[in-house]
Amino acid sequence: MDFSSKLLEQAVDEMSQLPGIGKRTALRLVLHMLKQPESQTKQLADALTKLRTEIKLCKNCYNISDTDLCAICANPSRNSEIVCVVEDIRDVMAIENTDQYRGHYHVLGGKISPMDGIGPSQLSIKPLIEKVQAGKVEEIIFALSSTLEGDTTNFYIYRQLEGIGIKTSTIARGISVGDELEYADEVTLGRSITNRVPFENSAKN
Amino acid sequence: MDFSSKLLEQAVDEMSQLPGIGKRTALRLVLHMLKQPESQTKQLADALTKLRTEIKLCKNCYNISDTDLCAICANPSRNSEIVCVVEDIRDVMAIENTDQYRGHYHVLGGKISPMDGIGPSQLSIKPLIEKVQAGKVEEIIFALSSTLEGDTTNFYIYRQLEGIGIKTSTIARGISVGDELEYADEVTLGRSITNRVPFENSAKN
Repeated sequence: MDFSSKLLEQAVDEMSQLPGIGKRTALRLVLHMLKQPESQTKQLADALTKLRTEIKLCKNCYNISDTDLCAICANPSRNSEIVCVVEDIRDVMAIENTDQYRGHYHVLGGKISPMDGIGPSQLSIKPLIEKVQAGKVEEIIFALSSTLEGDTTNFYIYRQLEGIGIKTSTIARGISVGDELEYADEVTLGRSITNRVPFENSAKN
Repeated sequence: MDFSSKLLEQAVDEMSQLPGIGKRTALRLVLHMLKQPESQTKQLADALTKLRTEIKLCKNCYNISDTDLCAICANPSRNSEIVCVVEDIRDVMAIENTDQYRGHYHVLGGKISPMDGIGPSQLSIKPLIEKVQAGKVEEIIFALSSTLEGDTTNFYIYRQLEGIGIKTSTIARGISVGDELEYADEVTLGRSITNRVPFENSAKN
């Protein structure tokens, strides 16, 4: 694209670095900003700068937090002996929304993915193992997505925990509530039969 | 959404003010920024702030520009007597890309749209009329999109120009080069027949 303005070009270039935002979308967004009051662009720029410079990771669970210890880890009514291993804060938010879980989390910050150059050392796996070795954890729940990377990460952590004698589980895979069986994929349907639950437990929610 | 961090929430809120970006996409973008080097977020924030505070509109054609007069208006080899009326800089870029036009532009900054509260006074229509009245223009080419708003705007300007005795034209509507007739909409196909061109002109490009 041939811009008549270097300032515009720079803004579009920076904007299009974001994932899923091409040059055209970036231009549309930037032109929209130019039509809005100047204060709105300032607020966005400030919020991004502040986030990037002041944000912390909870020193216990590595979730994004404004404080040293996140609200979940700091809450005494939550069970710190059950730890749910997730990829990022979006998974924490999704599980919190269910109101079904009162344990702690451990946020890995990603999944092992050699293709993207992400190895175990870039993730917060070591602190998790140390927490378990310190005898502070009773059960680990793996809640990573069931992709190649998710399964690899689960398995890597599982191997590290071998011999410590800790209870491990993964979240149940099965047919979504309200879904029709005929449209379910075979792997999911297969797992939902293999891991069937006693009928009297099925409505516990 | 229930965020564990006010900083994160603010950044997501500001980001989701942009058109077509919902809360989920905003969160994805902001989390991506957190994984990138701090300098990248800073560059984005700086580029946006700088753009918003330093950008100018060309005093002749109202296109976005870093200088008082944009590169097109400042170019002496371009014909200032032909003025192509467009909505915004994206249209200028699209027409410039064709390498078929050597005249000037006039950027309206939008289209008349009462539904969105945009009237003629919010657009740079008055300076266009004044330019024409000053006798500096020979031909006006309307190149707004053929929507209700585009047609309204064209017609509004056309009425303002009545009596001045200036040549006006609109860009040709027709079947796109390479398109199949059977898939074209009726209005476009109809116009392409009504406004047929002599065969010997058809390959001029």
